[in-house]
Amino acid sequence: MDKNIISTLMTILGKENVLTSKEDMITYSFDATADMPSEKPDVVVTPDNKEQIIEIVKLANEKKIPIITRGSGTNLSGGTIPINKGIVLSMLKLNKILEIDAENMTASVEPGLIIQKLNDAIAPYGLIYPPDPGTVTTATMGGSVSECSGGLRGLKYGVTKDYVMGLEVIMANGDIIRTGGKTVKNVSGYDLTKLFTGAEGTLGIITQIIVKLIPAPQYRRSMLAIFDNLDKAGKTIAEIISNKVIPATLEIMDNVTIRTVENYAKIGLPTDAEAVLILEVDGAIEQVVLQEFETVKKICKENGAVDIKLAQSDAERDSIFAARRAALPALAQVKPTTVLEDATVPRSKIPEMLKALKEIAEKYDLQIGTFGHAGDGNLHPTILTDESNKEEMERVHKAVDEIFKVALELGGTLSGEHGIGIAKAKFMEWEFGKEGVAVMKKIKDALDPDSILNPGKIFRGN
Amino acid sequence: MDKNIISTLMTILGKENVLTSKEDMITYSFDATADMPSEKPDVVVTPDNKEQIIEIVKLANEKKIPIITRGSGTNLSGGTIPINKGIVLSMLKLNKILEIDAENMTASVEPGLIIQKLNDAIAPYGLIYPPDPGTVTTATMGGSVSECSGGLRGLKYGVTKDYVMGLEVIMANGDIIRTGGKTVKNVSGYDLTKLFTGAEGTLGIITQIIVKLIPAPQYRRSMLAIFDNLDKAGKTIAEIISNKVIPATLEIMDNVTIRTVENYAKIGLPTDAEAVLILEVDGAIEQVVLQEFETVKKICKENGAVDIKLAQSDAERDSIFAARRAALPALAQVKPTTVLEDATVPRSKIPEMLKALKEIAEKYDLQIGTFGHAGDGNLHPTILTDESNKEEMERVHKAVDEIFKVALELGGTLSGEHGIGIAKAKFMEWEFGKEGVAVMKKIKDALDPDSILNPGKIFRGN
Repeated sequence: MDKNIISTLMTILGKENVLTSKEDMITYSFDATADMPSEKPDVVVTPDNKEQIIEIVKLANEKKIPIITRGSGTNLSGGTIPINKGIVLSMLKLNKILEIDAENMTASVEPGLIIQKLNDAIAPYGLIYPPDPGTVTTATMGGSVSECSGGLRGLKYGVTKDYVMGLEVIMANGDIIRTGGKTVKNVSGYDLTKLFTGAEGTLGIITQIIVKLIPAPQYRRSMLAIFDNLDKAGKTIAEIISNKVIPATLEIMDNVTIRTVENYAKIGLPTDAEAVLILEVDGAIEQVVLQEFETVKKICKENGAVDIKLAQSDAERDSIFAARRAALPALAQVKPTTVLEDATVPRSKIPEMLKALKEIAEKYDLQIGTFGHAGDGNLHPTILTDESNKEEMERVHKAVDEIFKVALELGGTLSGEHGIGIAKAKFMEWEFGKEGVAVMKKIKDALDPDSILNPGKIFRGN
Repeated sequence: MDKNIISTLMTILGKENVLTSKEDMITYSFDATADMPSEKPDVVVTPDNKEQIIEIVKLANEKKIPIITRGSGTNLSGGTIPINKGIVLSMLKLNKILEIDAENMTASVEPGLIIQKLNDAIAPYGLIYPPDPGTVTTATMGGSVSECSGGLRGLKYGVTKDYVMGLEVIMANGDIIRTGGKTVKNVSGYDLTKLFTGAEGTLGIITQIIVKLIPAPQYRRSMLAIFDNLDKAGKTIAEIISNKVIPATLEIMDNVTIRTVENYAKIGLPTDAEAVLILEVDGAIEQVVLQEFETVKKICKENGAVDIKLAQSDAERDSIFAARRAALPALAQVKPTTVLEDATVPRSKIPEMLKALKEIAEKYDLQIGTFGHAGDGNLHPTILTDESNKEEMERVHKAVDEIFKVALELGGTLSGEHGIGIAKAKFMEWEFGKEGVAVMKKIKDALDPDSILNPGKIFRGN
């Protein structure tokens, strides 16, 4: 990169906010996604106000330099890897809570704020911000809005886009715009708020976020139900929901995951079970929660759960959830490389998808552990492998292709919550056809004609 | 219009599906919006399949002829008036329910389906489609998706966009694309589903809609609370919600509306009351509903409601709701012209907005009745006037300008649920600035470069 650009950046930001050392560039050359190419950016900048960002964007626009906006880098689709080099724009210093408006149940925050810090700040008001990706204590609001993160509560509470009410965004030409606002109803012009949410930083740079908050549920009850048969677990899921009970959490772990978690965490999981379901109901009124809990228990039993462990205390609940949270780290320590996917299907297709995953694992002779958000059809098949084993990686790639093919055939989608990034760009036409991808590309080209904003993401060869 | 185009349309559709008589053109020259210019289209076509629509779009694209897609024409922002003439595309024959998927709680429908017919069809499954604009028995699914309709249940259940999961859309170039699907979680590429929802037919022609359904609430309790002071009514609204009760309905009517409704319907409303609130709580469990109902009643009393009428039967409930439903027809019969607006503010600003509306009515010596969805900040100030009185209409237009100015100053939006159309296009820059409107316009130009899809709507002079 031209030295003049670096010195202009230093003038804009101050020397201390412009990183160029090799060590720093390596730090920003990857994100949390496995089996991805890495690339060092030319420079990393850490602005602390939006005026600086506008100046950086104008400079990048003039010189046609890529800008990769980044929070904590917990991305799981390669979305924050600077594959075309350029400027990594770290938003971590724009991390203020600007307003908590308890009366309208909204909060306005800066993008660098860690999600959990918002929840901590609103807890005294009896409010919660429901989206809870696994990385809630490390991921930023800006990153999770840009990726439209999901999490364990998606079934009942929805995902990030259901809570983003308004945004302030800096466009590729340096213009700053505001979308949406604090009104529950808003149909004024195109819904740009929803367009930027989940756009993976390819359409604009988010500098402020207004989110909807909801009253914290006062009561909750949790259980772990054990099944000796995947189909029975699948039927249980469908039946709970068709009984009009919407659990806050309805998670599944398959046998590979159960055995791995038990081996890792020794929490007493039945290693011969074909599946366990982790269920939690919550709500504002204790009787209701208890009644729903009884319904869920009854349905589990009727569908042949071989054992049900009820959480009798917060500690027991925590241990049940610890099992689920251990899924990824436990699987990750089995082999050097963990390829985590997020194929998503309509809820009723979960049993078929689980069956297909088992067949794919056998066909390609791979170890696949599957866990995830069964209630909303969002599974995380996780291939345990080793990047250095070229022959196995070829089988891994074929298996991944097939996983997405099956998910789409079942009426599903490429990504429930991890985004497209570079990891799934090649599958986009499978889901949307050439015509659908062309529509998205036209929007990208219209708003970022020189493709300076996170280039190479979502679209192939962009 | 060139006769060859008419005959080509007849070849595509059959003669019986191509209307050209003067009487027919007059029928399609306006919609439900008052104080708007009217214009006759060149031709009205009534396709019964999407292949015909693709051919029509390709023809219109080649000849640069406007296409105005239309359902029942209940639009309230002039959105279906063919101000640039061209082809009115009536979707009323594409009116099938394609699938009710009770297991995944979704339905797939064609755009010409009347909203109420969907609700009738899903009732046996114990499911509802919550969006309920006042015109639920006449408006089509396609129209309400294109306008992102709200309604009386917005506060608790959200608006149309919260229920649209997927779309099939014909683009301006004749390409057909599919967006979204039946999965609860979906972050695959840009959220085109939400972009087309509320785009007022300016970006594509919707030919299929997948909507989310929810379990029907089993129990409900309703009341009418009477206040001698607007402020007290406003405080009551805020306090109910800050007590974590989210009523299914929380409607307000001001004194002008109360008097007019009573004069029209003779249902025993207190004509000296400054405001009435119509409240309904609902849910799956009777005890909860009763408990919430008690909370609401208590808060109304504590905030100085002078009287509370509880609905003791379905008939009494219907009579309370009849009062609210009579608001617009009652106001509409007072004067020849009814200018209905949908200025929307954050919920906490409702008392300030009501005060401002009163001042505006006095300042411009106009009769303004205000009613609406107080719980979600979506008010319907309704100016009672006479289009033939030029001098008064000038004052009306000034008052409308001022209403929107105040709504935006209070952190609100131009439209909560009626859309921009031609009625509010001139205010768009007030809400979004030149830069924000430019972003929307770039998207419009990218997807419909010759502006053949509902031209002149949302943007001025487009």
